[in-house]
Amino acid sequence: MNYIELYEQIKAKKSFLCVGLDSDPQLLPECLKDAEYPIFEFNKAIVDQTAKYTVAYKPNLAFYEAEGVAGWIQLEMTVDYIKKNYPEIFIIADAKRGDIGNTASRYARAFFEKMNFDAVTLAPYMGSDSVKPFMEYDGKWSIILALTSNKSANDFEQLKLDSSEPLYEKVIKESMTWGSKENTMFVLGATRPEKLKEIREYCPDHFFLVPGVGAQGGTVEEVAKNGLNSHCGLLVNSSRGIIFADKSENFAVVAGEKAREMAEEMAKYL
Amino acid sequence: MNYIELYEQIKAKKSFLCVGLDSDPQLLPECLKDAEYPIFEFNKAIVDQTAKYTVAYKPNLAFYEAEGVAGWIQLEMTVDYIKKNYPEIFIIADAKRGDIGNTASRYARAFFEKMNFDAVTLAPYMGSDSVKPFMEYDGKWSIILALTSNKSANDFEQLKLDSSEPLYEKVIKESMTWGSKENTMFVLGATRPEKLKEIREYCPDHFFLVPGVGAQGGTVEEVAKNGLNSHCGLLVNSSRGIIFADKSENFAVVAGEKAREMAEEMAKYL
Repeated sequence: MNYIELYEQIKAKKSFLCVGLDSDPQLLPECLKDAEYPIFEFNKAIVDQTAKYTVAYKPNLAFYEAEGVAGWIQLEMTVDYIKKNYPEIFIIADAKRGDIGNTASRYARAFFEKMNFDAVTLAPYMGSDSVKPFMEYDGKWSIILALTSNKSANDFEQLKLDSSEPLYEKVIKESMTWGSKENTMFVLGATRPEKLKEIREYCPDHFFLVPGVGAQGGTVEEVAKNGLNSHCGLLVNSSRGIIFADKSENFAVVAGEKAREMAEEMAKYL
Repeated sequence: MNYIELYEQIKAKKSFLCVGLDSDPQLLPECLKDAEYPIFEFNKAIVDQTAKYTVAYKPNLAFYEAEGVAGWIQLEMTVDYIKKNYPEIFIIADAKRGDIGNTASRYARAFFEKMNFDAVTLAPYMGSDSVKPFMEYDGKWSIILALTSNKSANDFEQLKLDSSEPLYEKVIKESMTWGSKENTMFVLGATRPEKLKEIREYCPDHFFLVPGVGAQGGTVEEVAKNGLNSHCGLLVNSSRGIIFADKSENFAVVAGEKAREMAEEMAKYL
């Protein structure tokens, strides 16, 4: 999916919502406990109720890998289901991979060929070697960790370099030279909206994937006011606040309502 | 496995060799092409021939994930096989994971509970949140990327901070405070032996996992001279130079010979 197609979807749905499929088997509704593929059944129900309000889904791979082979099967089933039934929706492997050369190529193959993800989140620590192999795929995206929403982002991401810029700023500026707004996004936490504004000054065109709205304290309003650009340029993620809003048999309908509420708020800023 | 047990194994085998199971299906010998589980059959044969000279195996997860469910199954089979037949050997998931809080906990469960790895490689970019959940497992290890052997390590790892130390040094010093030599190692490339010597000054006791010997230009001699400590403190990895040394039906025997040669060289420095 290219930049304009993503923007067209955002305009059509009046939403820049990304739903995080952090489908922790231990948190699934009781009614799915006996299903053969409980994670997949959960995701399918959530997707069917939220797709109208959602431009992207983001399975967090940790929750699938923790189940071993069974988790991996259900991840593939989930991606296949979304691509078949909602082909316009952007699917992000929240994998935070980062390795070099031929290893990075294999990860790229795993996510872009073996599975049909549109994008993968990547850790920048090892530098360009660890990102460029992902950029060789037309229409596929690298989403690079920049300034994350967690507390210990201060440990390294915010360290000042001797050039006086913080590390995350260097990461953004440097990795902007590896690709373009057509294949690169940055992960920027909603918990630091004032930084979004600063970053927009030197990174006006790229999409930002923004987690941290809701439980972590960020708001759609602040993210939108500081981060929107002429092509929206934002995917705001919500995971547990949507998918685990209700634990009854009605869980998917409630998730749909939560997604609709978020999309309605987003529409105000578009 | 704890620090002393690892050291005892090194002393007993007179080797600090880690064999990287970068078992790329496209590079497997012809004779395995029709096997039901070619990656596993390859690994099993390699392990049987190299275990005598090897203290650690390090499957690189990218090569398994690239095969989807089939790859994941063969990864589990490989770990089970090594643990059952060579329980003294340390097994590293070269996964370079890095995510926060509850996500990191799920990755830890995937590698330490669902599978029986002893250690996992971790990217430090997001800070302590992304490492500490792995440290909650007794006898399990976090191996943190510090100064890697690839060329683009210069992009970020070697950047000078305003405190005048390079980023990788800050990563090592900071993450030394999160755990201890009993549960933390660092990835340090063999291609920069002079840095190993410097790092030993402020990090005397920890184990270093050292890739980059062979094709990438590092040597066992230089790594040993600069990196050894009183408990060895080194695991030197070789992947393709051992496992793909020969492509005939004799591949595993040749791999065993290559491993023996490396171990014999290592014995000189112990």
